Amino acid sequence: MASAEPESAKEAPPSTAARGGVNLFLVGVVLRFVVFAAAVSSMVVMVTSKQTVVNKLRGVPPGIPVQAKFDHSPAFSYFVAALSLTASYSLTTGLASVLVIAKPNCSTKCLLHYAIFDTLILGVVASATGAAGGVAYIGLKGNKHVQWDKVCYAFDKFCRHVGGALATSLFASVVMVFLIWISIISLHARIRK
Amino acid sequence: MASAEPESAKEAPPSTAARGGVNLFLVGVVLRFVVFAAAVSSMVVMVTSKQTVVNKLRGVPPGIPVQAKFDHSPAFSYFVAALSLTASYSLTTGLASVLVIAKPNCSTKCLLHYAIFDTLILGVVASATGAAGGVAYIGLKGNKHVQWDKVCYAFDKFCRHVGGALATSLFASVVMVFLIWISIISLHARIRK
Repeated sequence: MASAEPESAKEAPPSTAARGGVNLFLVGVVLRFVVFAAAVSSMVVMVTSKQTVVNKLRGVPPGIPVQAKFDHSPAFSYFVAALSLTASYSLTTGLASVLVIAKPNCSTKCLLHYAIFDTLILGVVASATGAAGGVAYIGLKGNKHVQWDKVCYAFDKFCRHVGGALATSLFASVVMVFLIWISIISLHARIRK
Repeated sequence: MASAEPESAKEAPPSTAARGGVNLFLVGVVLRFVVFAAAVSSMVVMVTSKQTVVNKLRGVPPGIPVQAKFDHSPAFSYFVAALSLTASYSLTTGLASVLVIAKPNCSTKCLLHYAIFDTLILGVVASATGAAGGVAYIGLKGNKHVQWDKVCYAFDKFCRHVGGALATSLFASVVMVFLIWISIISLHARIRK
């Protein structure tokens, strides 16, 4: 077991298996920063989606300005909150991993903790993407059964931003899945050693 | 390593560590059937939510019946599809686990495979809960910014069903998180042995 190794083992050249483990760990660190970048982009694109239109939205008297903002919908607010949680988490764990790389003895416990918290974050970011996606789809297509009119023909910029934010958060969710897989596969690989 | 043990080891009384592993594995099996039951209930409650109302929904001429069905919303259709996938998956893996309990040699690889696929299913069921929740919230509260009227005052039975289905699928998502945690902790425990 790694914890039984003497301190001088740090100076010794790593074995092939250990190098493989570190490489997978390195991929994980890079992916954490990818999630951070995706979450921040997604959040910024959603927050800057504000658009005001005049004489464009059906059912509104001429000359009256109508504004679309992300915080007009609780689903979009949840989306921004979830993505900011994801961004903070991935930055924290990314930086923590950088510190951990130098200490292979710690990495098994880190893998366990990361996998546990990554699972929670995956649930949060996937549900936020789902919630915002469900509402955005009504904005795009409407729902004639309950007379919810589509609004994206008028709020074109707003909807482009929402679409971009959704695509980026979907990407972040997929990367979160890969991060959990990396932790699980790394833990499994250590059993075989 | 477990795979290096002789065949006769199966007959020998298990060690405390092995018993702990099997107990955690047993909890996992039970939780898989809990997820199955929750997913099936959620799906059935959503599918049976159909309601027809007359003279209740504002903006509809008197005497005209209006129907609410889950498949009037793509988010609810995705919800039903996702929950049926979750139900099939949890039943299959639950039954497979029952067969595996008798073969501890296989269980490490099973834990790896389960954790990998459980992660995907968690993403699917969390996003479906989010999507349906986002749309259901508009049904309940409306959105005055884009003139989407609330509909739950008229479709009371429909909304009660949707709420029940959402609560059950949220429960299934939480149990999926516990299932992944069990696999990860079990894998980690085997490293220490």
